[in-house]
Amino acid sequence: MQRNILTLFMMIMGSSLFAQESIETLSFSLDMIWLFIGAILVFVMQSGFALLETGLTRAKNAVNITMKNVMDFCFGAIVYWMIGWGLMYGKDALGGLIGTNQFFHAPMELNIENGNFYKSWFFQVVFAATSATIVSGAMAERTQFKSYLIYTCFISAFIYPISGHWVWGGGWLANLGFHDFAGSTVVHSVGGWAALMGAIVLGPRIGKYVKNPDGRVSIKAFPGHNIPYAALGVLLLFFGWFGFNAASTGVATVGDGGIWSGLNIARVAVTTCLAASAGAIGALVFSWIWFKKPDCSMTLNGLLAGLVSITAGCAIVSPGASIVIGFLGGILVVAAVEFIDKVLKVDDPVGASSVHLACGIFGTIAVGIWGNAPSAGVVGLLHGGGFHQLGIQLVGIVVVGAWAAVLSLLLFLAIKALVGLRVTPKEELMGLDITEHKAEAYTGFQIFSNM
Amino acid sequence: MQRNILTLFMMIMGSSLFAQESIETLSFSLDMIWLFIGAILVFVMQSGFALLETGLTRAKNAVNITMKNVMDFCFGAIVYWMIGWGLMYGKDALGGLIGTNQFFHAPMELNIENGNFYKSWFFQVVFAATSATIVSGAMAERTQFKSYLIYTCFISAFIYPISGHWVWGGGWLANLGFHDFAGSTVVHSVGGWAALMGAIVLGPRIGKYVKNPDGRVSIKAFPGHNIPYAALGVLLLFFGWFGFNAASTGVATVGDGGIWSGLNIARVAVTTCLAASAGAIGALVFSWIWFKKPDCSMTLNGLLAGLVSITAGCAIVSPGASIVIGFLGGILVVAAVEFIDKVLKVDDPVGASSVHLACGIFGTIAVGIWGNAPSAGVVGLLHGGGFHQLGIQLVGIVVVGAWAAVLSLLLFLAIKALVGLRVTPKEELMGLDITEHKAEAYTGFQIFSNM
Amino acid sequence: MQRNILTLFMMIMGSSLFAQESIETLSFSLDMIWLFIGAILVFVMQSGFALLETGLTRAKNAVNITMKNVMDFCFGAIVYWMIGWGLMYGKDALGGLIGTNQFFHAPMELNIENGNFYKSWFFQVVFAATSATIVSGAMAERTQFKSYLIYTCFISAFIYPISGHWVWGGGWLANLGFHDFAGSTVVHSVGGWAALMGAIVLGPRIGKYVKNPDGRVSIKAFPGHNIPYAALGVLLLFFGWFGFNAASTGVATVGDGGIWSGLNIARVAVTTCLAASAGAIGALVFSWIWFKKPDCSMTLNGLLAGLVSITAGCAIVSPGASIVIGFLGGILVVAAVEFIDKVLKVDDPVGASSVHLACGIFGTIAVGIWGNAPSAGVVGLLHGGGFHQLGIQLVGIVVVGAWAAVLSLLLFLAIKALVGLRVTPKEELMGLDITEHKAEAYTGFQIFSNM
Repeated sequence: MQRNILTLFMMIMGSSLFAQESIETLSFSLDMIWLFIGAILVFVMQSGFALLETGLTRAKNAVNITMKNVMDFCFGAIVYWMIGWGLMYGKDALGGLIGTNQFFHAPMELNIENGNFYKSWFFQVVFAATSATIVSGAMAERTQFKSYLIYTCFISAFIYPISGHWVWGGGWLANLGFHDFAGSTVVHSVGGWAALMGAIVLGPRIGKYVKNPDGRVSIKAFPGHNIPYAALGVLLLFFGWFGFNAASTGVATVGDGGIWSGLNIARVAVTTCLAASAGAIGALVFSWIWFKKPDCSMTLNGLLAGLVSITAGCAIVSPGASIVIGFLGGILVVAAVEFIDKVLKVDDPVGASSVHLACGIFGTIAVGIWGNAPSAGVVGLLHGGGFHQLGIQLVGIVVVGAWAAVLSLLLFLAIKALVGLRVTPKEELMGLDITEHKAEAYTGFQIFSNM
Repeated sequence: MQRNILTLFMMIMGSSLFAQESIETLSFSLDMIWLFIGAILVFVMQSGFALLETGLTRAKNAVNITMKNVMDFCFGAIVYWMIGWGLMYGKDALGGLIGTNQFFHAPMELNIENGNFYKSWFFQVVFAATSATIVSGAMAERTQFKSYLIYTCFISAFIYPISGHWVWGGGWLANLGFHDFAGSTVVHSVGGWAALMGAIVLGPRIGKYVKNPDGRVSIKAFPGHNIPYAALGVLLLFFGWFGFNAASTGVATVGDGGIWSGLNIARVAVTTCLAASAGAIGALVFSWIWFKKPDCSMTLNGLLAGLVSITAGCAIVSPGASIVIGFLGGILVVAAVEFIDKVLKVDDPVGASSVHLACGIFGTIAVGIWGNAPSAGVVGLLHGGGFHQLGIQLVGIVVVGAWAAVLSLLLFLAIKALVGLRVTPKEELMGLDITEHKAEAYTGFQIFSNM
Repeated sequence: MQRNILTLFMMIMGSSLFAQESIETLSFSLDMIWLFIGAILVFVMQSGFALLETGLTRAKNAVNITMKNVMDFCFGAIVYWMIGWGLMYGKDALGGLIGTNQFFHAPMELNIENGNFYKSWFFQVVFAATSATIVSGAMAERTQFKSYLIYTCFISAFIYPISGHWVWGGGWLANLGFHDFAGSTVVHSVGGWAALMGAIVLGPRIGKYVKNPDGRVSIKAFPGHNIPYAALGVLLLFFGWFGFNAASTGVATVGDGGIWSGLNIARVAVTTCLAASAGAIGALVFSWIWFKKPDCSMTLNGLLAGLVSITAGCAIVSPGASIVIGFLGGILVVAAVEFIDKVLKVDDPVGASSVHLACGIFGTIAVGIWGNAPSAGVVGLLHGGGFHQLGIQLVGIVVVGAWAAVLSLLLFLAIKALVGLRVTPKEELMGLDITEHKAEAYTGFQIFSNM
């Protein structure tokens, strides 16, 4: 009997331990699939940006803008593998300032550790590409192709990864308690600052701001050449953003059950869904009142504004708060577009700096106001947290903003001095498709001069 | 020894219970991811509808139709969170007639129960949006934008959720044995009835039906302005439909192993794939014989007809039956388009009522004919079930149809009386882009008058 | 006490065995979802090919080319269910030459075995469709619609499945050690050979190669009519290719931990990502040097070239090697396009044979050079494997190539003789939209004659 009992023990032990081991590998596989899904969804956003920027600019530059959107991913992926990943997620040095290893990282053994590296890299490279591709819209229709390629490499290899390390790589802002779940600041503000600096250094498109004989400045709008492209682009961005935000849990498994766990995936999707919807409604209503029409490109930007605004706080705010945040983001983007265009007189053809910078800042602040995750230590003003979290959020906004703005400004000035940033006026008037690529986007269709 | 045995027991118990708990949370996570995938796939269908409707209408209304397709999702999501979900899935009242709680539902604790709520809400909101967006195509090119926003809110908040409760919310039709796996009736017929009523109340577009001096009526076709948009839209709908149907299992786990289990996911995908293919072939062949040409828009609608037709029965019919159902759906849609256009003289610019109503009814009937799932209690005429299931299906078709038709008719008549439903003839002739949104879809491209 | 111990035993046994069973079903469900994701991603590639081919050809054939891309999937799915699957994955006969059962396979019982069949079928049908749809681009703008439908059925039902059986169905090439992870040869070369044979049998489009009075031949380029379509198409192909390659592991679970396991999913995604990026860069740089401009359609084809080139070896090469392979593929495709167009004078409107055949061969060779998976028995030249693997790869390339080339040549010649392959010159000049489908793609837009 005793022997029988021992035999039974062995059997049970074996089966139980085997089960335990399999649960671990199943968890690994589930998390692997989850980040894969997240990564390819964020990858779709490249198509979304390409269509949005193409649709909102003129037909004579359509080849150029699509080429830029394709190639910033291609160059970005290579340099992020070579350099960017290591700076962002390598072994920390200088007290949280920078990562220092895993450059050209290429382990060949098939095991859990290496699987985790590859899945994280794949999920991160598409975020780096998002940050870089934001810039192309603000600098559309007048930037040299080769200069574009140079600065997009620098953003993906250096500017984005280093500030990214501070927040997501275990750096000093993370240690301070700065909360940016999916990247209102890390991704969107960084891209938005570079976009704004680029648009300033380039100057406006020819004919955009014309001084009249009486000294006043006339501001001309250049309507986009294909609104359905822009709308499809926004819908694809919305689609991809579900991966951007929800897969920022990092895992699908429940684990410790906190905000970075599988328990939170669907709620993140819901706040993302509601904020985007409210953003579109906010911009629609505001533009309807302000411009006396339900403006299409403003509404589309409003939807994106809702998405950018909820990105930092999507994991820690209630559905109701997400509607408020999205709605305010939608109003803000209309105001920001008008301010940048009419007051600052900076020519940002697609409103990239309004969407990604203004709303990126607002979304990061929103964490300090509507944040409601005591277990994660993030409690905003309206939930009794006082100004503590809000203060930390402002530190992050200012420091990351200063980094991105100064570095990208220096980068654009250096490129301008060394290789040139802008095409010639003649090239600009003819369009960059013919002059840069010797191609037309729509051969066989009559295209009016857009001047 | 005895103590050793007890210690071993404790270890085994601990490990075994831990394993058991982890299997439960892993199952939760797997199901969470599955519904997330399903939801975002159904979300893609918004892009598909937007492109299909834009492509099949005229360029002068392209901004308007894309705006409507974007905004019906945005308004629909907000009102479905506020009201619709509670009516559809709240605590049942009145013997299966209506749900009564979970309005503005926003639980903040992270646990399995709340995770399940959020994942279900996210999966359901995209279905509600699909039902609502069907309407825009049938009412295209002549409906006021603000009126559109009003009725889309009512459909998403009241009409769709209440009949949805009867079938999917544990209501009286579910108890009767009515089977509609993914929504041929719940989603498509409801949207289709609203589309048909809307088109009737609005009346045809100017120039569509012209009375000749001899008293006969000439029927004019307004060809769509961009067939590749329509084709891409259909391919995106096909893509999204895999989520629509396959994720309607609700879970990815095997559980009880029935038709609503992970065991059935791939077979649902296969019947969906084959029915769509057969639908396109049916419409192609029939249009080739009837119109003496392989008609493109008929074939594209045939593919959708195959999809709508298989939606109710996708989980309970064989691959062979799915080909028959799809093929017949493809023929039916061509006949329905001709009947509605030529006989009823109702102007449905994209054929939405033919695709979603006619094939939605047919697909629901098909369950009673080809259904072959004894374990789920659904056995159709051809598998020895007699007329039992068929009778139940007809009850559901009639009652849900009456509900959707009457409610949407009243809604459109009320809007017409109170705020107006249709634009002025001058606005219609100029196009809704300029008159409603002060924008052109394709600035810089010459667009012929489409009158 | 003894009884208590036994009771405890029972409890533990029960819970432990239950856990064990659940791990098995969870693994099944996880693998099910993984192949579902893979399948729908590959399905998206149909949209990608449709847009790419439409964008790179002329507006007067846009309806025709989109119809072909939709219908080859629809017919292909039906015949692959009827015949193709059985030939490819049915019980082997004739020593690895052909599969012989599971035609019209339609099991209705819901269990693991049947679930595995349906998930594999769904994953495989989209590969068959990819192989078939490659052909439409090379034969664009001059092939009769009905002839297209005939040959696409033959490719999906017979040509693709039989050589597919040799490699993936457990046939003789698999036994020989031929390695083609996701189908550089099985899918792309087979499609590419058919494309090349089709283009040869059809002859060039009217006006493509014109003999001058002095006897020299002028070669005319027909630029595509919508570059943004082509770019969006390529981005969708890139997106879908992540499923094509990564889901070719077949499972998400870790299992034996080899290259066909969940451990390898993310590394496959990374090599795919880097090779595509390097391919675009390779073609961009080479076209910039060769043609003195960063050519858009060459760069887009370069991205695809990187993808085709990495497809065979994506699971067994390092990230660094994937960059080299992609870059060389990008250069190769530019050279191949020039060679086929200028030297062979074969008119392939979208460069399908260059992308899929030339790079399909190169990618298969690359396995023998850069392969680095000793555990899987695949070690290339640069990793100390000598010419062993390279030799096997060449055998596969030659034999599958001969099969696909000869069979498709015979098929096209037979169709030409029996029903005709090419439209009349008048139809070709008017465009296939009007003459084959009595439709225009862009009604209301002025389209220049493209002659």
